[in-house]
Amino acid sequence: MSKDKVIRMEHGAGGETMQALIREVILDNITSRSAGLVGLDNLDDGATINIASTIANNKNSDEIVITTDSHVIKPAFFPNSNIGRLAVSGTVNDLAVMGAAPLALTCAIVVPEGFELDSFEQIIRSMNETAEEVGVPIITGDTKTIERNGLDSIIINTTGIGIADEVIRDCGMCPGDRIILTGTIGDHGISLLAHREGFDLTTDLVSDVAPLWNMIRSVIPIRTIEGRPAISAMKDPTRGGLAGALNEMAQKSGTGIIIEQKDLPIKRSVSSACEMLGIDPLEVANEGKAVICVKAEHAEEVLSIIREHEYGKDAAIIGEATDENSRKVLMRTTIGSMRYVDTPTGDLIPRIC
Amino acid sequence: MSKDKVIRMEHGAGGETMQALIREVILDNITSRSAGLVGLDNLDDGATINIASTIANNKNSDEIVITTDSHVIKPAFFPNSNIGRLAVSGTVNDLAVMGAAPLALTCAIVVPEGFELDSFEQIIRSMNETAEEVGVPIITGDTKTIERNGLDSIIINTTGIGIADEVIRDCGMCPGDRIILTGTIGDHGISLLAHREGFDLTTDLVSDVAPLWNMIRSVIPIRTIEGRPAISAMKDPTRGGLAGALNEMAQKSGTGIIIEQKDLPIKRSVSSACEMLGIDPLEVANEGKAVICVKAEHAEEVLSIIREHEYGKDAAIIGEATDENSRKVLMRTTIGSMRYVDTPTGDLIPRIC
Repeated sequence: MSKDKVIRMEHGAGGETMQALIREVILDNITSRSAGLVGLDNLDDGATINIASTIANNKNSDEIVITTDSHVIKPAFFPNSNIGRLAVSGTVNDLAVMGAAPLALTCAIVVPEGFELDSFEQIIRSMNETAEEVGVPIITGDTKTIERNGLDSIIINTTGIGIADEVIRDCGMCPGDRIILTGTIGDHGISLLAHREGFDLTTDLVSDVAPLWNMIRSVIPIRTIEGRPAISAMKDPTRGGLAGALNEMAQKSGTGIIIEQKDLPIKRSVSSACEMLGIDPLEVANEGKAVICVKAEHAEEVLSIIREHEYGKDAAIIGEATDENSRKVLMRTTIGSMRYVDTPTGDLIPRIC
Repeated sequence: MSKDKVIRMEHGAGGETMQALIREVILDNITSRSAGLVGLDNLDDGATINIASTIANNKNSDEIVITTDSHVIKPAFFPNSNIGRLAVSGTVNDLAVMGAAPLALTCAIVVPEGFELDSFEQIIRSMNETAEEVGVPIITGDTKTIERNGLDSIIINTTGIGIADEVIRDCGMCPGDRIILTGTIGDHGISLLAHREGFDLTTDLVSDVAPLWNMIRSVIPIRTIEGRPAISAMKDPTRGGLAGALNEMAQKSGTGIIIEQKDLPIKRSVSSACEMLGIDPLEVANEGKAVICVKAEHAEEVLSIIREHEYGKDAAIIGEATDENSRKVLMRTTIGSMRYVDTPTGDLIPRIC
C-alpha cells in the first residue's frame, strides 16, 4: 500500500490489494464501526444492527427509516468541504427530516484508477468526522474501481438506517402551519459553482454542508396541547432547491404555500452572484438546510431552539401554508407583488450532490 | 417522457423531468414497493420498515442485517441477464449468506446521459423480477445523471436490509466441517468475458446470476443434536472467486481447508476456456453461487436439500476444514498432488460486479 500514491484497478478487485486498502485507509480512519454483532472490522458480507438494544433505546418507535443517495459531485473537493462530508450529511439529513435518529450508515465507493490516495484518505476522514458529529457508526461498505476512461471522479453511495418515534412526512402540512427555513439559501451551490467555474466572488462564501440531526432532534419532541407533534412536515431543499422542496410539500399536502421574499435568509454575496449569473436562488440546491413546517402556536418556540444551534443561527419563518392556491407556491416579493414559484423543470445549476 | 429515447441530464436534476422518469419508468415497473408506513410511491426523503410487524414475523431474531454493493459491470447487458438482475441478486445473496431473510432493498442509480431509455426500463424490470423471486420490496431509491464524458456505463447501488434468527458468519468454520459449493464455478465470469471480448466459445454457456434466498432459507433451520446451527459459515464467491472466498473463511476461522479438484463442479466449456486463456477458474468471480460450511453429520442432508432447488442442482461437497495448515487452502489435484490455493492478488479477470 505505502508505495502507491494513486488508486490502481487492483484496489477494487477483491484480492489482497483491496484488503490492504480497506484495512489501512478505511478502517484506520473510521472511529465508530459497529452497531451489533457484525461490524465494519469483520469485513463480512454485510453488518448487523442489534434488535434488542435498538428497541430498548427507542421504546416508542414505530418505524425503521431507510434512505439512500449516490453522491456524484464534481469536483470532489470544494471550498471548506468535500464529497465525504457531503455524503454523510446528505444521508443523515434525509433521516433527520423524516424524524429519525441515525442508527448506522453504509458506504459504497466507486473510484477511478489514478485517483490520489491522499485525497481518498482525506475523504474517508471527512466522512468519519461528519458521522462522529452525530454519533453514527459506519458499519459496512463496498469499494469498486473503474478504468480512468470510464469514470472521471469518485462516486460515494451512503445508505442510512434510522429509527423514528413518529415518522415525519413531507405531506403532513396543514393550512396555517408556519414554514421555517433553518438557514441561508444557496451558500453551498453558489460557492461550488464559483469554485468550479473559476469565478471570483470576492467574498469568503464557502460551502456550509452539515449534518443536521443534533439540531433537528431538539425540536422533534415538541407537542401541541392535543399531544400531537408540533412539526407537521419536514424536507431538505437539495436538488431542485427551496422551490422544488416547497412545491413538493404543497403538492403532497394538498395545501398552498405563501412565502415572503423579505424574510428569506440569503447572503448578499449569494443574491449578487445569482443576479449576475441569471440564476434564481430559490432553485439553487442546498445541503445542510431544512424546511420545517410547524403548528403556528409553536413556530416561535421551534425557531428559537433552532437558532440556538450553530447550523440554525440564520433560521427564519419564511411563510405559511394556506387554504387558497392549493398545491401552488406563491411569493410576495420585496416590492409587494405576488409571483408563482414553480417546480424547476430543467437541468439545475449547479449540480451539487 | 414519451418523446425521449435516451437519458438526458435533466432526468437526474430533481425537477419535473426526473419526477416523470421515476413515476413512468421506475414506479410502474416495480411490483412490491413498501415495507411500512412510507414506501417508494411516497417519493419522500426515504422509506420505512414497520418495527412491530417485523418483530411479529421474526420472533426469534437477534439482528437486523445490512449489506451494500455498487455494481459497475460492463457491458450492462450480457448473455441471459443484465446489471439489474445482478444487483438485486448480489445484495439478496449477501444477506442470504449471513442467514438473513430480505426485508427491503434500496436502489440508487447513476446513469450517463445518452443511455437508452428502453435499456434503462429493461434493467428496472429485471430488478423487479429478481426481487419478486424472493418476495422483497424495493422501498426507496435515488437517480443521478452524469455527462457522457464523465461516465461510460450505468452504476447501480443496492443496499439490502434483512433479518436473521441467528447471524451466520464467514468466520465460524471448525475442523471437520464439510464444504458445499452450490453449483458450477465460473459460468457467469467466463460467459461475460467471452461476450465482452468477442470470443466464440462455441457453447451455450450463459450467465447464471440468481438470487439464492429461496434455496438457502431451506437449510438454515437445520440444527445439530446439541441444538446448534448445522451451518457454521457461509460466503458467496464473487470478486476473488472461490479461491478468495475459501481463503477468507480459512483465515477468519483459523482453520485450514482442503478441497478435492475432482469434486469441483465446473462445466467443461468453462475449464476449456480457462485453460485456453490461462485463467485459474478458482479465481474467476461468480454470482449466484454460495459456499456453505456444515457440520459433517449434516453434510449429506444439506446437500440433498440444496440439490432439490433449481439453483443448486450441481451442488457438491468439495472438501473440508482441517486442523492442519491453519489459515491456508490446499487442493488435491486430479493427478493426486497437493497445491496451495492462494488469495488472488492482482486485477482479476473478468471483473463482473
